[in-house]
Amino acid sequence: MKYDFQCDYSELAHPSVLEALSAIGTTQFEGYGLDEFSSRAANLVRTLIKMPSADVHFVSGGTIANLVVISSILRPHEAVVAPVTGHIFVHETGAIEATGHKVCTVTDKNGKIYPPEIDTLIKEHHDEHMVKPKLVYISLSTEGGTVYTKAELTDLSNYCRKTGLYLYMDGARLGAALSSTVCDLTYSDIAGLVDAFYIGGTKNGALFGEAIVICNDHLKADFRFLIKHRGAMLAKGAAVGLQFEALLKDGLYDKLAHHAHEMAGKFATGIQDAGYELLFPQETNLFFPIFPKDLIQKLRQSYAFHDWKDMGDMAAVRLVTSWATPESAINAFLDDLKQI
Amino acid sequence: MKYDFQCDYSELAHPSVLEALSAIGTTQFEGYGLDEFSSRAANLVRTLIKMPSADVHFVSGGTIANLVVISSILRPHEAVVAPVTGHIFVHETGAIEATGHKVCTVTDKNGKIYPPEIDTLIKEHHDEHMVKPKLVYISLSTEGGTVYTKAELTDLSNYCRKTGLYLYMDGARLGAALSSTVCDLTYSDIAGLVDAFYIGGTKNGALFGEAIVICNDHLKADFRFLIKHRGAMLAKGAAVGLQFEALLKDGLYDKLAHHAHEMAGKFATGIQDAGYELLFPQETNLFFPIFPKDLIQKLRQSYAFHDWKDMGDMAAVRLVTSWATPESAINAFLDDLKQI
Amino acid sequence: MKYDFQCDYSELAHPSVLEALSAIGTTQFEGYGLDEFSSRAANLVRTLIKMPSADVHFVSGGTIANLVVISSILRPHEAVVAPVTGHIFVHETGAIEATGHKVCTVTDKNGKIYPPEIDTLIKEHHDEHMVKPKLVYISLSTEGGTVYTKAELTDLSNYCRKTGLYLYMDGARLGAALSSTVCDLTYSDIAGLVDAFYIGGTKNGALFGEAIVICNDHLKADFRFLIKHRGAMLAKGAAVGLQFEALLKDGLYDKLAHHAHEMAGKFATGIQDAGYELLFPQETNLFFPIFPKDLIQKLRQSYAFHDWKDMGDMAAVRLVTSWATPESAINAFLDDLKQI
Amino acid sequence: MKYDFQCDYSELAHPSVLEALSAIGTTQFEGYGLDEFSSRAANLVRTLIKMPSADVHFVSGGTIANLVVISSILRPHEAVVAPVTGHIFVHETGAIEATGHKVCTVTDKNGKIYPPEIDTLIKEHHDEHMVKPKLVYISLSTEGGTVYTKAELTDLSNYCRKTGLYLYMDGARLGAALSSTVCDLTYSDIAGLVDAFYIGGTKNGALFGEAIVICNDHLKADFRFLIKHRGAMLAKGAAVGLQFEALLKDGLYDKLAHHAHEMAGKFATGIQDAGYELLFPQETNLFFPIFPKDLIQKLRQSYAFHDWKDMGDMAAVRLVTSWATPESAINAFLDDLKQI
Repeated sequence: MKYDFQCDYSELAHPSVLEALSAIGTTQFEGYGLDEFSSRAANLVRTLIKMPSADVHFVSGGTIANLVVISSILRPHEAVVAPVTGHIFVHETGAIEATGHKVCTVTDKNGKIYPPEIDTLIKEHHDEHMVKPKLVYISLSTEGGTVYTKAELTDLSNYCRKTGLYLYMDGARLGAALSSTVCDLTYSDIAGLVDAFYIGGTKNGALFGEAIVICNDHLKADFRFLIKHRGAMLAKGAAVGLQFEALLKDGLYDKLAHHAHEMAGKFATGIQDAGYELLFPQETNLFFPIFPKDLIQKLRQSYAFHDWKDMGDMAAVRLVTSWATPESAINAFLDDLKQI
Repeated sequence: MKYDFQCDYSELAHPSVLEALSAIGTTQFEGYGLDEFSSRAANLVRTLIKMPSADVHFVSGGTIANLVVISSILRPHEAVVAPVTGHIFVHETGAIEATGHKVCTVTDKNGKIYPPEIDTLIKEHHDEHMVKPKLVYISLSTEGGTVYTKAELTDLSNYCRKTGLYLYMDGARLGAALSSTVCDLTYSDIAGLVDAFYIGGTKNGALFGEAIVICNDHLKADFRFLIKHRGAMLAKGAAVGLQFEALLKDGLYDKLAHHAHEMAGKFATGIQDAGYELLFPQETNLFFPIFPKDLIQKLRQSYAFHDWKDMGDMAAVRLVTSWATPESAINAFLDDLKQI
Repeated sequence: MKYDFQCDYSELAHPSVLEALSAIGTTQFEGYGLDEFSSRAANLVRTLIKMPSADVHFVSGGTIANLVVISSILRPHEAVVAPVTGHIFVHETGAIEATGHKVCTVTDKNGKIYPPEIDTLIKEHHDEHMVKPKLVYISLSTEGGTVYTKAELTDLSNYCRKTGLYLYMDGARLGAALSSTVCDLTYSDIAGLVDAFYIGGTKNGALFGEAIVICNDHLKADFRFLIKHRGAMLAKGAAVGLQFEALLKDGLYDKLAHHAHEMAGKFATGIQDAGYELLFPQETNLFFPIFPKDLIQKLRQSYAFHDWKDMGDMAAVRLVTSWATPESAINAFLDDLKQI
Repeated sequence: MKYDFQCDYSELAHPSVLEALSAIGTTQFEGYGLDEFSSRAANLVRTLIKMPSADVHFVSGGTIANLVVISSILRPHEAVVAPVTGHIFVHETGAIEATGHKVCTVTDKNGKIYPPEIDTLIKEHHDEHMVKPKLVYISLSTEGGTVYTKAELTDLSNYCRKTGLYLYMDGARLGAALSSTVCDLTYSDIAGLVDAFYIGGTKNGALFGEAIVICNDHLKADFRFLIKHRGAMLAKGAAVGLQFEALLKDGLYDKLAHHAHEMAGKFATGIQDAGYELLFPQETNLFFPIFPKDLIQKLRQSYAFHDWKDMGDMAAVRLVTSWATPESAINAFLDDLKQI
């Protein structure tokens, strides 16, 4: 069987997560996330982000986290602004539009967007014949595996606050981002700079589950109604609470992210040492080496990965490491690379 | 702590389910439910219902199963018909309306609805100033814990087919229903009589997860798009596939349902023996004894359960048993009942 | 051809309205309701209701007025409360649900609803598993042709304000209602008691058009976006502004309503004098006499009208007069009634 | 007051249209477009397009025509493809997204789109993580005032049919387009090549109103439900039927369009004779001369028109003529142009 570098959700869950689920046996708990495990996990999130006032809600996945949060914030005629490569614009099958809202796009640089491009868009939307952009969606890390610096995120946050825009961060790969050596942000920084974000479990060792964090008091009201209304409230909310407790109580979450990042670093370095370039610098657990197309064809016999960009005789492919990637898999790939 | 008879999702998951999740370690799998475990679980469902042509899709919970299926079937002006006590009408926070569709209601008898009442509704909706009812929603077991007989479901199915209505069954408690001694339906009967249904995992031993089954070929197209579009596609779909494989491969699903039903039978009998009546006969794992209100107040000191119906000095309460309910809990309740 | 007592929109428009449209020739005006005619008409509305701060917007019809207003007010999980006979619940083909919101119903008395029944509904909706009722919809006159008294509307308004509910009035037949001898409300009273309402033109002499009035400052923001967003903004908004100017500047609107009401009064009295009862007292321009079914069949040969309520050998039918109903039509009907 | 070249809906309605509305006096008619006038107007449309089987429905404006048609055709996960300058993408305040659907865009040439660009988009949307494009939206004339030739529209139609896409044409300015000397299409050609389109009244002499034409039998079912469901059904549908009868019975519609086109031709020629270039050739009643910015500023003192494209010291502006534009207004502009 081929080794899979397609994504960071190819392995089920870290053993500690599964042990936490098994440990409680038939202990009874309240339904719908009102259990003590979810409560403790929410407190661990609040401690992590150093914001005791934050509201924390657990849901099953990233797309539903995005659509619940975004549709909870916007009035009907309001729109969300996203990078043109943004997950909500490209890869969520119109889930945001299904809630009635347009996704407006701005050109990104390797996945990141900046105030000037957003401002141009805002200024173009000047009357009632166009939607009213009201919320900026970013992700950390981005679709390009890149990270915002503290200065960049602060600029974005300041711009949004000055302009009356909310700022929401999709943190499906937040762990990977914060493990990056080029990222100087902390969880606490993020909580202070955005209005809402989520901390992704699915792509960092959980069986499933994301922790939505609402920082801005104005966005907190009735959020549990909105979760239920979109079908996102789990009867056994405890199943996510237990996982996040296991991930957060002793720093496992960051440890797993760090491993993924370390593996990606070795992987990228090895590929560069073998004489191949990257499309842009590797910053987190996904990166984009440029290979000759015939080499790609040969590599595909042993490894699974996604195409990214056609460049004539060459092409960029996407390689992703995870919390579970063994160094041996990377070494095998690098060996094959040299031999082919 | 009080023993909880509020619902059948107060305990996390059967050990075999959790073992199945733990057993695969870091084995890699395809994302989004395209993995081999989900594939095998889907085949087990097809075998169970004796319908090799059925499409099977796994999602995380009942509300999202309902909204994905219902909104996948209806054109914008079409409506779903439900019992006035139906879960989609009462307890899903407008999740169906959020997809743009009205839920029309008909009066039920202990949770069940019949062709004559539906036909009256259909005939009242005779022109374009009213929605067009196009789909009938029922649940098995019902909100009243009752079950349709084969004759009743056949009547309903015949009526729907003759009238051009689709028939969809919410099977959140399908296991419990089919374990009922008064239910003469089989999985295969149901598959032959409805257009779509789901087999509930969450309320019968799974950590989470429901298996949507689409029987009618006309409703199958693009269903994976529709799952993703509502945020219901799990990145690690394998997490549900593995659970259903564990539940179905050796009959565990029915065994757990049978336990819940057996406990409810003993429970109901004990209560009747103690001199109390039921609101209507106990058919599955939830039933409704009628107690004096002061007795209810005392029972609440040791047990959690839901109010159901105010009847003056008396009231009906809802008691629910689960796959995990120990006989000792029931005996304790019955003892207390006698002592108070 | 049969004379039509089915509704009050069977005749096109009062001559003064059409003259106002013809009078401006090819005078140019701003598009989208930003013209001076709409501006003057809005001022006439503000003068009529004695509320200089009100926002006034013109749209083409009642259903779209209702759906724009209601969907502009509610957050996604919030619901509107309506009489079970309410137009938005029965006769708008799910237009409110199409914007994502459930319509909750309370039992009405001849079309009117009262705080106790609403309060029961509100108290039943106590947690996040149910929609959150946030807006009460009433109509004046009601579907039963009845009117709220000032005391009744004040009670309703006080209840809503105390309970945190918005109050919206569908005024498709507001003119007819305020012409009623049993109605002691004024336009100004209404503006002070509700959060938003509309003054219906279509059913009182206009070619088409309704004037939405927003009284509550919190509901005013971005309303023009919301009108456009639902397709309700007319390129030639002037076409409605001109009509409302014609209807309001010299009291034509009330004069036409008064005529309809006067005709209905004579009509109802004549029917009662002929020995037939009404289902409930005639208060506005529509009322419900009870006739033997064979009489109804004969009357239908010469007159068009709607069935209302089957009562065995007898049935109640709905008769409607309009701004254009000639006394001769009523006399002819009464003559036929005596002869048959 | 400034003369207004901003749009073709700055004058109310052609006298013949208003006369038709006035002529019927208090003649009674059936509500909701079931009247004889609408029926006759629909027949006139069928004759015009030489398609006796077409369904014809009248609504009040272009945005609501677009949203009713598009949302009637698409399943929830399906998307509409539009030019990036398309009215539904830019200038309808998210009205399509409000019905739950994404608008995907392709780059246009002066407003027109072609199969190769659409095909690239279709091929990029290859799996269930992306919306499924199912309908192509074009307008005739386009936002650039350009027209498709018969060959171009035939290519587009063939491509759509081969690919399983529906083709819908926004005909807000269809009259102007078919009056163009560079357009070799007929109404009948269009009806044969698209699945649905609308013939715009508002921008060509009507007070308001558009005639939706459904050519493809598969798209006809329940369309009146869908009109009502979006609030687009006028109680006095006769008001639009009468107007279209007046416009179509003696060729007035085309005569008015011809006038607008003739005026635009003189206008554009005059501007070019005065030494200024057009952004691209004038084909219909709107065109885009390029002027120095200081000249624009001076012209604005006497004329109203929209900015179109900033080009440094120069800018393109949009000039629009209508059915009512007098030659004197154009001459005055041209005189001023020479004098400034």
